[in-house]
Amino acid sequence: MTNLASHKLKFSIFLIVSEIVFLVLFAALVRYDEDAAPVPKEGGEGVTGSPPSGDDGAKTDDAGKKLNSLYPMFQDVHVMIFVGFGFLMMFLKNYGFGAVSYNFLLSAFLIQYAIIVGGILKMIVAQIDGDEALSSIYIGTETLFESDFTCAAVLISFGAVLGKLSGFQLMLMATFEVIFYKVNEVIGVHYIKAADLGGSMFVHVFGAYFGLALSRIMNNSNQRNRPTEGSDYKSDMFSIVGTIFLWIYWPSFNSALATDEERVRAVINTYIALCGSCVITFAISALTEKDGKITIAHVQNATLAGGVAVGTCSNMMIHPAGAMAIGLGAGALSTVGFVYIQSFLDRVLSLHDSCGVNNLHGMPGLLAGFCGIVAAVFATDEAYGDATRVFGDDFKDGTDQALRQTGALVITFALAVTGGLLSGLLIKMLPTSGLTKQQYYNDSDFWADVEFPDIYESQSLTKPGGSAEESNI
Amino acid sequence: MTNLASHKLKFSIFLIVSEIVFLVLFAALVRYDEDAAPVPKEGGEGVTGSPPSGDDGAKTDDAGKKLNSLYPMFQDVHVMIFVGFGFLMMFLKNYGFGAVSYNFLLSAFLIQYAIIVGGILKMIVAQIDGDEALSSIYIGTETLFESDFTCAAVLISFGAVLGKLSGFQLMLMATFEVIFYKVNEVIGVHYIKAADLGGSMFVHVFGAYFGLALSRIMNNSNQRNRPTEGSDYKSDMFSIVGTIFLWIYWPSFNSALATDEERVRAVINTYIALCGSCVITFAISALTEKDGKITIAHVQNATLAGGVAVGTCSNMMIHPAGAMAIGLGAGALSTVGFVYIQSFLDRVLSLHDSCGVNNLHGMPGLLAGFCGIVAAVFATDEAYGDATRVFGDDFKDGTDQALRQTGALVITFALAVTGGLLSGLLIKMLPTSGLTKQQYYNDSDFWADVEFPDIYESQSLTKPGGSAEESNI
Amino acid sequence: MTNLASHKLKFSIFLIVSEIVFLVLFAALVRYDEDAAPVPKEGGEGVTGSPPSGDDGAKTDDAGKKLNSLYPMFQDVHVMIFVGFGFLMMFLKNYGFGAVSYNFLLSAFLIQYAIIVGGILKMIVAQIDGDEALSSIYIGTETLFESDFTCAAVLISFGAVLGKLSGFQLMLMATFEVIFYKVNEVIGVHYIKAADLGGSMFVHVFGAYFGLALSRIMNNSNQRNRPTEGSDYKSDMFSIVGTIFLWIYWPSFNSALATDEERVRAVINTYIALCGSCVITFAISALTEKDGKITIAHVQNATLAGGVAVGTCSNMMIHPAGAMAIGLGAGALSTVGFVYIQSFLDRVLSLHDSCGVNNLHGMPGLLAGFCGIVAAVFATDEAYGDATRVFGDDFKDGTDQALRQTGALVITFALAVTGGLLSGLLIKMLPTSGLTKQQYYNDSDFWADVEFPDIYESQSLTKPGGSAEESNI
Repeated sequence: MTNLASHKLKFSIFLIVSEIVFLVLFAALVRYDEDAAPVPKEGGEGVTGSPPSGDDGAKTDDAGKKLNSLYPMFQDVHVMIFVGFGFLMMFLKNYGFGAVSYNFLLSAFLIQYAIIVGGILKMIVAQIDGDEALSSIYIGTETLFESDFTCAAVLISFGAVLGKLSGFQLMLMATFEVIFYKVNEVIGVHYIKAADLGGSMFVHVFGAYFGLALSRIMNNSNQRNRPTEGSDYKSDMFSIVGTIFLWIYWPSFNSALATDEERVRAVINTYIALCGSCVITFAISALTEKDGKITIAHVQNATLAGGVAVGTCSNMMIHPAGAMAIGLGAGALSTVGFVYIQSFLDRVLSLHDSCGVNNLHGMPGLLAGFCGIVAAVFATDEAYGDATRVFGDDFKDGTDQALRQTGALVITFALAVTGGLLSGLLIKMLPTSGLTKQQYYNDSDFWADVEFPDIYESQSLTKPGGSAEESNI
Repeated sequence: MTNLASHKLKFSIFLIVSEIVFLVLFAALVRYDEDAAPVPKEGGEGVTGSPPSGDDGAKTDDAGKKLNSLYPMFQDVHVMIFVGFGFLMMFLKNYGFGAVSYNFLLSAFLIQYAIIVGGILKMIVAQIDGDEALSSIYIGTETLFESDFTCAAVLISFGAVLGKLSGFQLMLMATFEVIFYKVNEVIGVHYIKAADLGGSMFVHVFGAYFGLALSRIMNNSNQRNRPTEGSDYKSDMFSIVGTIFLWIYWPSFNSALATDEERVRAVINTYIALCGSCVITFAISALTEKDGKITIAHVQNATLAGGVAVGTCSNMMIHPAGAMAIGLGAGALSTVGFVYIQSFLDRVLSLHDSCGVNNLHGMPGLLAGFCGIVAAVFATDEAYGDATRVFGDDFKDGTDQALRQTGALVITFALAVTGGLLSGLLIKMLPTSGLTKQQYYNDSDFWADVEFPDIYESQSLTKPGGSAEESNI
Repeated sequence: MTNLASHKLKFSIFLIVSEIVFLVLFAALVRYDEDAAPVPKEGGEGVTGSPPSGDDGAKTDDAGKKLNSLYPMFQDVHVMIFVGFGFLMMFLKNYGFGAVSYNFLLSAFLIQYAIIVGGILKMIVAQIDGDEALSSIYIGTETLFESDFTCAAVLISFGAVLGKLSGFQLMLMATFEVIFYKVNEVIGVHYIKAADLGGSMFVHVFGAYFGLALSRIMNNSNQRNRPTEGSDYKSDMFSIVGTIFLWIYWPSFNSALATDEERVRAVINTYIALCGSCVITFAISALTEKDGKITIAHVQNATLAGGVAVGTCSNMMIHPAGAMAIGLGAGALSTVGFVYIQSFLDRVLSLHDSCGVNNLHGMPGLLAGFCGIVAAVFATDEAYGDATRVFGDDFKDGTDQALRQTGALVITFALAVTGGLLSGLLIKMLPTSGLTKQQYYNDSDFWADVEFPDIYESQSLTKPGGSAEESNI
């Protein structure tokens, strides 16, 4: 209990100190961008502290249009982050509060933190590139969206270590991860100029392998064979709430930052890929279970793999049939991952993966990177009308772009693993008060008034992996 | 178990073969429509394989506007399909996985399948009408929306047979149903030119009576008096998640395909009708239960009847009070249906209706058709400004339109019943491995790691209709 | 049981009579506003019964634009009302049906009722002000939004008395409250011209103190120490569904009625404030519990306090850091409220607050009013470009506006308390058949087929506050 009290003190102090630092940095650096800043009266004087802006007359109208265009998709993604990820991870029968609440806390923390880290990095890049120096971090409609993307990456990592880190350790993980995440994004987008509209490389591959590397470092025997590592009928239902909302809104995730016909294409491709991965998941799940039953964990996860795998090339000219093929491949790969690869990695590499993020985000993310490379090879102005609309103004030809895509994928993977390993080592070195054996996958020590009924252990409700004698520890 | 394994093999093979067929047909026939196709550079050459398009200069802008206008409402409807229907049907205490997962699988399958069936039908119609031959199926923003409408019809039928068909049988039902659905829609919309903006006839009436006819064919004594045919306190709560999301987003369902003032009117009318049916449901529910209690199933279902009943005339000049009256009538009718008519139909016609779709979709859908006829009678250019905005360019006068509305309603009902009977007979004739007695309304044989606690039977939790001795079968 | 039957009769008759009255008043008074009314053919005649309108040519286009701009945010708020509030209040383990269903019924009733009360009040005000007499109540897109705001106020009051009033008493409360609510709004907005974009004063302060005053009047010893006044693990999870949806969509609540850059600013400020209150809630919750555990009720509620507290000044130039500071203050205040103030008020003033609305809506709402005053003091055209965009055309200077803000806050508080006391006295005087001791916080007498398992009392699941011997009463 003293251990617990000490952990909570560190946890609380960390949060309070962080917020004070955020407050100071916001006051010093952060300003509304021109879409949110006041508009001078016609013929009036300039407004104090307003951001650099062009034509004021048309400005308010533009701000309104931009919000109307981006906000509904932003809110869809916002639901994915807080409801989608949050509930998807509620499958553990005794870790429902932890899953949804840490998901909530991490995201609220990360939104603020990502604005700062991302903004400072932009200043540094401007310095390096010799551009006009930026003196402020401007926040506007896109900022909200970018922050949610950052959350997604960290929440994927959270999935790899779900139930295995204390609250304080999770906050540290998030703190370290965002730095690596943002640096990788700047390298991939700004310098390498890889296209990754749905963030399958920068978000999914990065988040998954960062989390898995960190999970490997945090690996220990206490986290194995716990009776709490399993779901029950109702917790699985909460989890599927998350699945369904993620599935529904994924087209917004993969298309929000595009415009016009490119955006419509990204919506359609994602929609079709998701349908493919959903159907094929049921088929493979029934085939791989020996008595032909379907495993609900596959339905909760692998059905979404099409959304990941089509993310990089969602706005490219992959043809509707291409989107479907990607979805089918991703769903099958993900289901096979759950059935065979996850336990293999655990056995051989001691790589414990609480939610199976390698199956849903890791491998489908790598597939997405690969599809992006292939799609880039065939990129021409003939096929795209104007290929710079999809690949950026510096687009030369398909081969060059394919090399860029490859580079970004390799660097993302490398930085994720390196970052995850380093962060894990740091967390281990710091006095972070890790979990005791009975605290794994278990809310009861961390939440007031939570007592689990004995029925889970006594009344034939024990799940595979749960052994009765341990429940009294 | 061999029976089970054989069922699962058929199920998996069916899904895999379907996806291969879809993939081939998508590759051969499906193309992005002009909102999603690449835009040629200004003054540039044409783009390979682009759809027939008018003015390229304004095109991207139009694509963006159309997406901004339709996409948020599409996503609302998407939530209705996957969360709304999916969770509404989770009320059965031991069939939660089946309800939400088959809902998910059916919809993902149907989206792809409906694009193909709908597209091919359009080609055939162009042939018949002597129009310019269509060589491709173009998908764009509207296609997403139309696919969700098709899903809704099949999911309503699913409600009639919930817990009574195996996964494979459900897939066959969906496969047959969509053909009837799309043919009926073409007849009603393209040839008869009936107005039915919210799809109350083409979706609700069709789906309900198709499902009921099929349920009649599949009727057998094993499905009666099962201890699993009932809800518990928590499963009813998941169900009401579905209700609430359906209720919230119904105005989008009933208005998305309209524009401008017609769309605003459809939103308002649906919103008011839903309020009416919600309030009256509570009143009638309390009155009809002898000790004055409210039945949660009424709250879960009859509150939505206003949305169904106002669907056909949602964009017509029915006056806000008219919308309210329709909602009140539909809510009362639906509640009375749950209390008296459902058991009557079961007793007299052996018409078992798992979710009571006749009460929520069937009778309110017929009411909607009737309201559409009445509203059409009074349609004039005086009342509508320009009646062709609501009734289409071929609008002559109210009487003519009322006849069209009547024709569409009658044909829809007839095709639904015929289609349901034929599909049911086909499913019965095929070696589809139906359910055994203990598999009705029960996930346990179909899902890995699902065991239901004895508490449902042993601890005074038995529901009406569940008898303890059967639980050991 | 006779008591129960008599209650239900009153309840049903009240609902039916209300709907008949609504129907008559809608038929007599309510019309589509110009966004929903028919558009005359070009060069055609006027349309029967159309509202006063300006330029018809541009009209349909405007209706479409307005709907596209407001509708997605309206739907976000709609989700807050029905899912957010509805599920948040499902935390009581035996009152889940009551919470979500009465929330649903009240809102559907209130939407219709608020249109009428608000519309008639507008007529009266036009009369008083000597403006052109209004002969009809016009409903359009904004009406939907305003109705949802009215619902929010009443649902907050419902939170104060959750589980303590019968259905009939709740309907009476709503009936009385809307009149006070609408009068207060007219005074504050129309006459005093206070700015309160997110309704923190008019909705949150009003709803909370109305409900608390009424709760004080209804106070009695039967409602104390009930074994049913507590949550269980799964009911808390349903509750957090509500929290998360409220949190996600709060930026829409606080910005929907603004336009252009003001709206973007309101979104950003609300978003940041919510992040601050979420993080600080976890910190303070862990610090205040003696063994360092986090209390799920704080996560369910206090995380949202930032959205309340920033509501009045969400569109003002409070700077992103200002928004963060408000969020941090509100989250801390709210958590402290749950830990110390709620039980203090109950002990000292016999002020029982079922959901802790004083902590989430009351005190943060007062803080919002205060922040609005401070922000108004510094309002100048220099800071705002054009301060009338935020504060209305009659804006003079900061001091004047600050006085207006203060006036509105004081009047709102006073009217809320007065209204709540009067309404409570009225309900007590009327023969409303209140609850018996065992009916408090308990669905079982009011819902068909609801039986609670003994496990809640017998199997070590008893919560603090529930004592075993009472469960047999």
